[in-house]
Amino acid sequence: MTNSELAVKAVIDTWNQTIARFDSILDKLTDEQLENEVAPGKNRGVYILGHMVAVHDRLMPLLGFGPQSYPELDEVFLTSPDKAKATPPIATLRTQWKEVNANLAKYYAQLSADDWFGKHTAVTADDFAKEPHRNKFNVLVSRTNHLSYHFGQLILMK
Amino acid sequence: MTNSELAVKAVIDTWNQTIARFDSILDKLTDEQLENEVAPGKNRGVYILGHMVAVHDRLMPLLGFGPQSYPELDEVFLTSPDKAKATPPIATLRTQWKEVNANLAKYYAQLSADDWFGKHTAVTADDFAKEPHRNKFNVLVSRTNHLSYHFGQLILMK
Repeated sequence: MTNSELAVKAVIDTWNQTIARFDSILDKLTDEQLENEVAPGKNRGVYILGHMVAVHDRLMPLLGFGPQSYPELDEVFLTSPDKAKATPPIATLRTQWKEVNANLAKYYAQLSADDWFGKHTAVTADDFAKEPHRNKFNVLVSRTNHLSYHFGQLILMK
Repeated sequence: MTNSELAVKAVIDTWNQTIARFDSILDKLTDEQLENEVAPGKNRGVYILGHMVAVHDRLMPLLGFGPQSYPELDEVFLTSPDKAKATPPIATLRTQWKEVNANLAKYYAQLSADDWFGKHTAVTADDFAKEPHRNKFNVLVSRTNHLSYHFGQLILMK
């Protein structure tokens, strides 16, 4: 393996491990438990779950894989704070979370290491020529850390 | 920049950003606040801080940079759960946290991209020949996500 292939493997392995750990906790929490706040006055479990679905779903267009499946979640879980909008049924969010991640995993497996260092869709070709760090790999690193951040919160509900 | 250089930059940038965000919250929390639990029945802020110092300090030998500075923290913050042992003064931990991270940053800046894909010290040369993903970069990715995980908890104390 080349160093850039090893780099991609390191981050995708961490992504997959963290999704598996997140799911293991999520599967143990009841819908009723997810209605609770992770800490007093902070976001509820259901908000973190919906936020994760929305952020991962938006990786589809950002990485050039295809359209977002659930744009209706943006208003509830990205542009509004918790408790501002009615949340969809938790069972629905659980299903969407599994679907979105399974779909991403399928596309991840199709990219070569070189593909990962190509530009993402939120940067123009001109800007990318000047700022080559604005690549798909950078998005993957950022979103893997975002996942770890919220996993650190969800695990407090256990 | 080569793809492996871009990969190293992506993760070190995320490391630096997350340390800066962690420090921004830490600086706003008083010692008294850090004595509180991040969520009811969970680890206290001081335990998370001490745990982070110990884990980052142990990166020094693991990445081959030099000896651990504060091995006495291992028993309190790595091998014992919170509240099992007396914790050092919070002011001391705050200073150690800054020192350890400043020291790591100095060594990070000295490594070439190729160096990052060399073996870390917890794997033998024979095993590394068979498992080249057990490299320093992999440790960096893992510890960056560990930092994000605990930052997600510390921020709940704000």
